[in-house]
Amino acid sequence: MSNLLENFKPGPLDIYRKNASFDWKKLKVFLETEDIIKYQTEGYEVLRNHPDFSEGNSSSKSLDDQRRIAFKQCMAQKSMDIFSINYQIMDLKRTTAATRILFSSNAGATIKFTVGDTLFKSSVMNMGTARHQKYIDDVDEGKIFGAYCLTEIGHGSNARGMRTTATYDKQKKKFVLHSPDFEAAKCWAGGLGQTAMFATVYAQLVIEGEKYGLHAFVVPLRNPNTLLPYPGVIVGDMGEKLGLNGIDNGFVQFNHYEIPRENLLNKVADVTEDGRFLQFNHYEIPRENLLNKVADVTEDGRYVSPIKDPNKRHGAALGSLSAGRVNIACICETLGVKALTIAVRYAAVRRQFGPDGRGEVPILEYQSHQLRLIPYLAAAYVLRNFNTWFSEVFHQFTIETLTGNARPDAPEMGIEIHGVSSASKPMAGWLMKEAIQESREACAGHGYLKAAGLGDIRNEHDANLTYEGENHVLIQQTSNWLLKMWPAVLQRKPISSPLKSIDFLSNGLEILEKSRFSAKSVEEVIRLDSVIKTYQWVICHLLRATHNKVESQIKSGKDAFTAKSDSQVYYAKSLAIAFVQHFMLQRMIATISESTDASLTNVLTKLCSLFGLWAIEKYHLATLYQGGFATGPTAPTLIQDSILRLCAELKNDAVSLVDVIAVPDFLLNSVLGASDGMVYKRLQDSMLQNQYCINRPPWWRDIVKTTLQNKL
Amino acid sequence: MSNLLENFKPGPLDIYRKNASFDWKKLKVFLETEDIIKYQTEGYEVLRNHPDFSEGNSSSKSLDDQRRIAFKQCMAQKSMDIFSINYQIMDLKRTTAATRILFSSNAGATIKFTVGDTLFKSSVMNMGTARHQKYIDDVDEGKIFGAYCLTEIGHGSNARGMRTTATYDKQKKKFVLHSPDFEAAKCWAGGLGQTAMFATVYAQLVIEGEKYGLHAFVVPLRNPNTLLPYPGVIVGDMGEKLGLNGIDNGFVQFNHYEIPRENLLNKVADVTEDGRFLQFNHYEIPRENLLNKVADVTEDGRYVSPIKDPNKRHGAALGSLSAGRVNIACICETLGVKALTIAVRYAAVRRQFGPDGRGEVPILEYQSHQLRLIPYLAAAYVLRNFNTWFSEVFHQFTIETLTGNARPDAPEMGIEIHGVSSASKPMAGWLMKEAIQESREACAGHGYLKAAGLGDIRNEHDANLTYEGENHVLIQQTSNWLLKMWPAVLQRKPISSPLKSIDFLSNGLEILEKSRFSAKSVEEVIRLDSVIKTYQWVICHLLRATHNKVESQIKSGKDAFTAKSDSQVYYAKSLAIAFVQHFMLQRMIATISESTDASLTNVLTKLCSLFGLWAIEKYHLATLYQGGFATGPTAPTLIQDSILRLCAELKNDAVSLVDVIAVPDFLLNSVLGASDGMVYKRLQDSMLQNQYCINRPPWWRDIVKTTLQNKL
Repeated sequence: MSNLLENFKPGPLDIYRKNASFDWKKLKVFLETEDIIKYQTEGYEVLRNHPDFSEGNSSSKSLDDQRRIAFKQCMAQKSMDIFSINYQIMDLKRTTAATRILFSSNAGATIKFTVGDTLFKSSVMNMGTARHQKYIDDVDEGKIFGAYCLTEIGHGSNARGMRTTATYDKQKKKFVLHSPDFEAAKCWAGGLGQTAMFATVYAQLVIEGEKYGLHAFVVPLRNPNTLLPYPGVIVGDMGEKLGLNGIDNGFVQFNHYEIPRENLLNKVADVTEDGRFLQFNHYEIPRENLLNKVADVTEDGRYVSPIKDPNKRHGAALGSLSAGRVNIACICETLGVKALTIAVRYAAVRRQFGPDGRGEVPILEYQSHQLRLIPYLAAAYVLRNFNTWFSEVFHQFTIETLTGNARPDAPEMGIEIHGVSSASKPMAGWLMKEAIQESREACAGHGYLKAAGLGDIRNEHDANLTYEGENHVLIQQTSNWLLKMWPAVLQRKPISSPLKSIDFLSNGLEILEKSRFSAKSVEEVIRLDSVIKTYQWVICHLLRATHNKVESQIKSGKDAFTAKSDSQVYYAKSLAIAFVQHFMLQRMIATISESTDASLTNVLTKLCSLFGLWAIEKYHLATLYQGGFATGPTAPTLIQDSILRLCAELKNDAVSLVDVIAVPDFLLNSVLGASDGMVYKRLQDSMLQNQYCINRPPWWRDIVKTTLQNKL
Repeated sequence: MSNLLENFKPGPLDIYRKNASFDWKKLKVFLETEDIIKYQTEGYEVLRNHPDFSEGNSSSKSLDDQRRIAFKQCMAQKSMDIFSINYQIMDLKRTTAATRILFSSNAGATIKFTVGDTLFKSSVMNMGTARHQKYIDDVDEGKIFGAYCLTEIGHGSNARGMRTTATYDKQKKKFVLHSPDFEAAKCWAGGLGQTAMFATVYAQLVIEGEKYGLHAFVVPLRNPNTLLPYPGVIVGDMGEKLGLNGIDNGFVQFNHYEIPRENLLNKVADVTEDGRFLQFNHYEIPRENLLNKVADVTEDGRYVSPIKDPNKRHGAALGSLSAGRVNIACICETLGVKALTIAVRYAAVRRQFGPDGRGEVPILEYQSHQLRLIPYLAAAYVLRNFNTWFSEVFHQFTIETLTGNARPDAPEMGIEIHGVSSASKPMAGWLMKEAIQESREACAGHGYLKAAGLGDIRNEHDANLTYEGENHVLIQQTSNWLLKMWPAVLQRKPISSPLKSIDFLSNGLEILEKSRFSAKSVEEVIRLDSVIKTYQWVICHLLRATHNKVESQIKSGKDAFTAKSDSQVYYAKSLAIAFVQHFMLQRMIATISESTDASLTNVLTKLCSLFGLWAIEKYHLATLYQGGFATGPTAPTLIQDSILRLCAELKNDAVSLVDVIAVPDFLLNSVLGASDGMVYKRLQDSMLQNQYCINRPPWWRDIVKTTLQNKL
């Protein structure tokens, strides 16, 4: 094991490192496996040694420079075998390992690669047939870049409201793409701004004046040799964003733009030459079409899926929609961990105030500082453990489905993955947003320096809250799914799901009737079974309360849409939040149960308990009283005292906990957070090296002239 | 009145504007007065017509361009009479009006002016004597720029820990300034990076090896004709920050740098030529020294203050320390209001989803969207009302004190202003931070565009959380002050303060004994007296609980420092938060009581109640149960139902409420938030106008070459 991981350089962080209750290397191996640590080390070295990564990721550069660098890094990523899908598939834990490495580097470049290459390709692969094979080959061979165009200027979350049309022209045997106005322009597509030559474009299909709903087309946009757009295509860059400026998000407006009939991605629906519309419902890719082979449409225009049960096909399709969300939860964690690494290490080095005569103490010693950082560190651990597991499960599921080896319960699993990922992505986004902001503030003045790195982390993370489903809209998918369980709960039917996220609902009524807050001491409150018991009651209560709220609104005359919409705050949203927090805790407990080292079990248990109690205090305290789980004054105080105690107990472990999950210094790229703790040395170097440091500004005479004028 | 304010252009916001329950112009006149509206209009015109403001404030520009523009705007501000202190003093409501205008424009330029001009000057004025008059004159005449150097690289909040020394050299009759290492370098001083020729520098005074504590000196740094630093001075720029990049924050390290003895700002302490230290304790500026005249030290080195009572001098001094904090609370509000203006107007225009057959509805119609924005709009109103009042009170107090007309209760008032501002600045910072972030997210994808303006607002606001006292450290001043009241509460002594923020504590024991949550309906909960009753109980309970917590920790053997430090979370911090929220509500109620128009009373009452209930739900619900104010399950539900109802009722007023407090479009500078609601038109214009839009990047051949290479 000593060969696997290098020791950190001695320095001011040693005080805490020596006082940790566990061996950080053992914990890392336990959580990540030796294989993954080797993979990480190799991945880090590949990036560290690549010339196109030496320019780093600095948003101080001009927009154009950021774009140019991201393009080069995107091409470099494409060339790196270690990050290829084939390499990741060999051990599915590598999926999260690769995401963590690449998104710690230059998130903009990584998204450029993921969208322009992977997402375009997989959209063609999933929706197209053999006639679209060439696009996949061309991307694979690096001949073209693609983009994925769904969102319109006027419509994001509401895909059905899209207004771009694709009208079939029977004479020309072509589709005519048209955007009625700028609101109907496609937008936000990554790579579309400057790079994409083709795009998958969703448009409302129209044949002979009749509408057939949203369908996808492969659309040539720019001449691959000149990068100039084709006539009828107005394609451009959306301009600067708050972050992720390496990626060129673009818009495209179509002006009666004609594309061949064959460009319809026709796996589930096709239009015959003479303008007949053929629909094949949902699909599943057969075994022989794995990876870059896609299904064909038979000559008579029919498609027969090997999976007969439409329900099963629907579940599988739903599951595959989750790819983006599963990945984003991991991106959130990656950025949150970067911020926490910086803030915790800086808090261990920075000394300020202290009891009389005993010198200044590190700010990590202060209760209020512990409470700002350590619960988020616990959240990051719970989230990270969840992401590693969930990504593995998800990719396994996808591979089985794509290879025709779908497990018997694939439909239920697809639905469950959809339900879980629709809450885990928002939860990850919200938790890490707060972790990043709290880290920024906890680093006080120096945290406001660009060289600290926290601003870029915040700006990059921000997009996670919006893309692939705005969080507040997305999380309704989870509560809608959970609400469907209520009748079964009421009838005391056994409930079980492939990932076991809802199995406890089988005892829902019993939980509601009998479970109560009964702890009399901090020791009892801290126990994981007590945390889980509380969560299960909260979920059952919110499920019932949300169901009743919706019902009562319908009875009072509201339509179903409004009744549901008016039951979000304090009800449906809280339900989905509690559900996913509980599931993440459940997964953490499963991991802890595999530990055979008491010191590791001990620290992981504390993290798990802290996250659970802190989240109960923050999100669900009112619920405990509303549903009668808690009565009397003691519950909040016991919970708060438990949180304070756990933070105090974890304080000496915080630096080592960060060491386990931190990326190497060259990726962290922060003057405050480096692993040697040499904060002040690095601050000095960083300031003295910046070009503005001691040179007068080029326009210094303006300053002097102004003052001279006033002197005369 | 119709001459005072122009109507908004017709557009998509009309639907809401027509449905508002009140006349926005009447509300604006009621809250701001006709005089202030005229002042605002004049101020806006001055900025709009000034050529140096036409370049706007875009962080897309290079750091150097941002600096150059801010310098020009800073000089322009200096030349604008309307924003001068003399002009503001004529009507003290202008202090907040001017802050709101200038910080809506270019915050970096405004800070550059405030720090390089006002802060440097007032530090000399407050701590110097007649021999320093020339510095004030030189600044006034635009001959020099100054800076204010307190913070060191290694020490921020803990001023006593500063390590720069000023050692008196009796032979040379000079002070030798020295920074032992880079940690002792002064830093973060605005204008120090590139512009300042002089600075007020705090250093540990040393005479003959003996230490005399922190004292301030005027220190020449750069040759005013060449801007080159003097030998012995290493002065430089700290580099790029997360925001506010117009202002050049700098650092300075001294290498045995000699300055004349006379440069000690010697109002409260002096060093004689032969190295004797003379101390005069705290001070108050006598009438004849108002503005640019400062007190002298008599020939025999003695200083006799006209205010004999040292307690009174201390109170006055404390009060004047609050200037920065009072102003920052208003900056926070200004930036928060900008963000909310954008998010509310966009939410009223953007349509998404809807009940079947009834078209899409504006997202402002959704409960969950209302809950994201309207409580923060209520918070902004309560905060704005408080800031206007508090700034007027504070400046009146300062003028009275400086002119020797201090009111009899000036010491108590100085202490109260300190206690209030130490919590109102953090509260304003935290509330508006969340308002800005929620606005960013509520604008979803397009909110991530730089042209939406929300990124710059967030990055500029961020510094408010840290400077002039890191929020978590600063707010302890408030709880420390409140805790001193507990013995009087226990003895049922009458408690009263000049601003009446703590008068209700006179009934503290009675409140604790008798006050309980007794409301049975939403109507009862919503009443302002019920909100106030709840808050007063919360404060009394937290005062007692925090006192007991500190005492019990001391009894258990902790020293006073640790006992206090370990009583922050859930106790002292919550106490200070509840206190300042209650005081802000109290001030809002005072304003409402002056309204004679039922429609204005009605909407302001709803805003006040919503802010109070929402803050109780968010911050204090656990406390209600812990102290037995609430028992049983109904309190949280009634409070939550009240919040939902108030948000729903205020939904149609939201756009008009924003119209009352919004800055003109040229200052708002957002494609999503303009007052005409033409969101999509502006999005289109903004995208098509950006230079990257439809042009290929200069390096387009790299993209094509890469793909061509792969084609061969």
